[in-house]
Amino acid sequence: MFEAFENKKMKKLLDKFLDIWSVAYAGSLLGWDTETYMPASSIKERSIVFGRLTVLAQRMLLSPEFRELVNQAEKEEKLNDFEKGVIRVLKREIRIFEKLPPEFVEEFEKLTAEAKVVWRKAKEKSDFSIFEPYLTKIVDMSRKKAELLGYDEHPYDALLDLFEEGLKTREVEDMFGNLKPSLVDILKRIRNSDGYRDKHPLEKEKYDIEKMKQLNKKILELFGFDFNRGRLDISAHPFTNSMGIFDVRITTRYAGYDFRRSLLAVIHEFGHGLYELQIDEKLMATPIATGVSLGVHESQSRFWENMIGRSLAFVETNFDLLKEFLPFLEKYQISDVYRYFNLVRPELIRVESDEVTYNQHIILRFEIEKGLIEEKLDVSELPQIWNENMDRILGIRPPNDALGVLQDIHWSMGAIGYFPTYSIGTILAVQIARKMESEIGNLSDLIHEKKYGEIRTWLKDKIHRWGSTYPPKELIKRALGENMNVRYFIDHLERKYKHLYAI
Amino acid sequence: MFEAFENKKMKKLLDKFLDIWSVAYAGSLLGWDTETYMPASSIKERSIVFGRLTVLAQRMLLSPEFRELVNQAEKEEKLNDFEKGVIRVLKREIRIFEKLPPEFVEEFEKLTAEAKVVWRKAKEKSDFSIFEPYLTKIVDMSRKKAELLGYDEHPYDALLDLFEEGLKTREVEDMFGNLKPSLVDILKRIRNSDGYRDKHPLEKEKYDIEKMKQLNKKILELFGFDFNRGRLDISAHPFTNSMGIFDVRITTRYAGYDFRRSLLAVIHEFGHGLYELQIDEKLMATPIATGVSLGVHESQSRFWENMIGRSLAFVETNFDLLKEFLPFLEKYQISDVYRYFNLVRPELIRVESDEVTYNQHIILRFEIEKGLIEEKLDVSELPQIWNENMDRILGIRPPNDALGVLQDIHWSMGAIGYFPTYSIGTILAVQIARKMESEIGNLSDLIHEKKYGEIRTWLKDKIHRWGSTYPPKELIKRALGENMNVRYFIDHLERKYKHLYAI
Repeated sequence: MFEAFENKKMKKLLDKFLDIWSVAYAGSLLGWDTETYMPASSIKERSIVFGRLTVLAQRMLLSPEFRELVNQAEKEEKLNDFEKGVIRVLKREIRIFEKLPPEFVEEFEKLTAEAKVVWRKAKEKSDFSIFEPYLTKIVDMSRKKAELLGYDEHPYDALLDLFEEGLKTREVEDMFGNLKPSLVDILKRIRNSDGYRDKHPLEKEKYDIEKMKQLNKKILELFGFDFNRGRLDISAHPFTNSMGIFDVRITTRYAGYDFRRSLLAVIHEFGHGLYELQIDEKLMATPIATGVSLGVHESQSRFWENMIGRSLAFVETNFDLLKEFLPFLEKYQISDVYRYFNLVRPELIRVESDEVTYNQHIILRFEIEKGLIEEKLDVSELPQIWNENMDRILGIRPPNDALGVLQDIHWSMGAIGYFPTYSIGTILAVQIARKMESEIGNLSDLIHEKKYGEIRTWLKDKIHRWGSTYPPKELIKRALGENMNVRYFIDHLERKYKHLYAI
Repeated sequence: MFEAFENKKMKKLLDKFLDIWSVAYAGSLLGWDTETYMPASSIKERSIVFGRLTVLAQRMLLSPEFRELVNQAEKEEKLNDFEKGVIRVLKREIRIFEKLPPEFVEEFEKLTAEAKVVWRKAKEKSDFSIFEPYLTKIVDMSRKKAELLGYDEHPYDALLDLFEEGLKTREVEDMFGNLKPSLVDILKRIRNSDGYRDKHPLEKEKYDIEKMKQLNKKILELFGFDFNRGRLDISAHPFTNSMGIFDVRITTRYAGYDFRRSLLAVIHEFGHGLYELQIDEKLMATPIATGVSLGVHESQSRFWENMIGRSLAFVETNFDLLKEFLPFLEKYQISDVYRYFNLVRPELIRVESDEVTYNQHIILRFEIEKGLIEEKLDVSELPQIWNENMDRILGIRPPNDALGVLQDIHWSMGAIGYFPTYSIGTILAVQIARKMESEIGNLSDLIHEKKYGEIRTWLKDKIHRWGSTYPPKELIKRALGENMNVRYFIDHLERKYKHLYAI
């Protein structure tokens, strides 16, 4: 055990960390089970368990004994990169917990536990006013959280950092500033093109759920998912959950029609799962044996979903397989499926939206969050602002709050500063693909030749195996030779949709 | 929360206990998952988690802070029965852990972790000599364990107590002493009867696994299993696992033939599950919100399995339902199924054996364990002793160790002193049925009238709702008005098999 670590004090620290890691592992299984197999009434006891285990792990992390082990290890000379990574990750976690007083954490957790229930009810009734007082408190506490955590430039930086280590508001503004004009322009050209359609006949085609499960499994096998170290199950919202690097579980859903939603979710979650599964085994059960940030994680899921799953090469090479499990495809051509996978149209719902409009949904949320934290916006204005902006940006107006400002769970969970990581992942996915192509050849060819092993190996060497050894920006710089750059993403849209819509 | 508790110091103690309870809850889910859905390779990380969580819970239980809370609460006046139960259970656990030094516990856990793997291999190769050195160490350490724990009369008492609070070797000897002659006699008469058969055609009948799953679910619904607080899944060996009283999961297996094995396992595990599910909700998340002992637990599973599942009334009232899911039953009569459920024949394997011979398997194990602890027997002699005794008692000789001395996992887990609880449960099940009948009417009538609700309510009032409030013997005395008595069991066999075999 701990083969990647040489220093004795480090090994001692890691051994002690196993207590914290074990509690987190158990918490992760509890989380997975809650979304998949838990009997409904169990939540009563389980919510107690979640709260206690969280506090227990924090208490162990902040114990004088553990902090002393971190300090002792940090003072050692000649630490290798893995060892430095461990120190960085642990000090970061300790700093975050340390700056937030237990009473604050408890109050915030109590608030968000209630808020989640209230949000669900508000969404059901499509009435923002039910959720408004809770969101007001969440925003107030998030501002306070930012002050407690501290920041150099902008209070929102402190919140971003919780989800994407080192990310600054300024960087997000630059990213979206560079992206926005192109997104507006491309969407406009697509909507004005002759090929523009706001629906596709394949969306209505019904599938057999058992067959769809088998197809999803076949695709996972094709990509090289290791079922000895993972599972595919069903949940209301697809997700990936890793207990450790030897137990990584993904889920999808089966509506019974519109098969791309089930299939692309599997491919998306496969990307998340592969990241965890390809972390160096020598890092097992250490603080760095996990993906480094939400943005980098999303780059992996989006790489598989957008750059592989939505590619023409993927549809071409798997059309026969798809037909085997989805007999209605006999009536369609490869080009139909490809168009169906890449249908561009303004959508009210973020998670249903396409590559071209997706980031607009994130920009809307980012601007609202920034405004709220800067106290330039009031929570009561949100429905109006939301609807006006949707109308302005995408030309559609939500008929109600459920399809508008209430659609996402994130704010009810207190996750302000989370959304920008989705865009980072979407943008990085393209950039990663281009770098990969410069080193091992055209992606389309790799897919045609079913060289998924080569794709996996490249991702492993460049990104996965390192876990959280390096901070996200450094990992990207090392892997790609440059920082994130939206240009790749814009070029990708231009090239792909020029072809698809003859624009 | 803690509605059954009035004392303030008690509530403080219970609040602190939630940390320990939460870790146990998580450990329980990990246990369930390991046997049901865990991907095979995950065991590598998971075994670390099991070890760490066990030590963590022990450390919290033995912490000076927690023990002080127990002592403070114990000193309070006018504690109610629930509160006294909490003190009894916690002091018992603390005493056990306290008496076993951490190094001893660690060594024993390491030994049994390895021994389980070695036992599995030895069983596969059917070679006791592979397992012998491990069992020798386990027996040595168990003797030491008994010395560390302390005892008044017999070292084996200390081991029995770990599984059945307060049980003495002397009591087990009395129980088996009273039982043995009758078991020998009844078996002899059955084997000499005209109706004796050593096989039944229904054992070979193949079933559709999906249909069998549906049938099992129907039976659980008939009995009143609450699927909002529990599940039915598949595992290699059927078991019941309760995280808490709101999440109780049972499993069974599906061989594809010999349907009674799948069905009776479900009914057996339902009995275990119902016990946990019917514990008073006001005891939720406390140390007494669980079944009080293995023997009492087994009495519940055996009650449902033997007194209901194997009854003529059950077969009569469910024959049409069974036929619906098992079409081959069209060729059979109700009496065939009843005989099939109650086929008496000497079996090599304990878990496959019938009501008449089952306890003989336990007696064999008890006598061996006692001999080993008394140092009157040597581990190396076990295969020979086993085979000779099987021959003498049941007239069959295991052709190899896998079908003999290596068949059970218990010893490899270090569980010496466990087996007698199976007999206690089997005997108590009958006694409970007789008491129930004296209060709410003939069981056969209740089954015919599908009054499972009345049966559940009686069990809840008399036994289940108390959890571990009273020690096992006191609970039995309160519920039945007398101590355990093998007479009821013997009478049951006499009555039932007189009818079945015309003896």
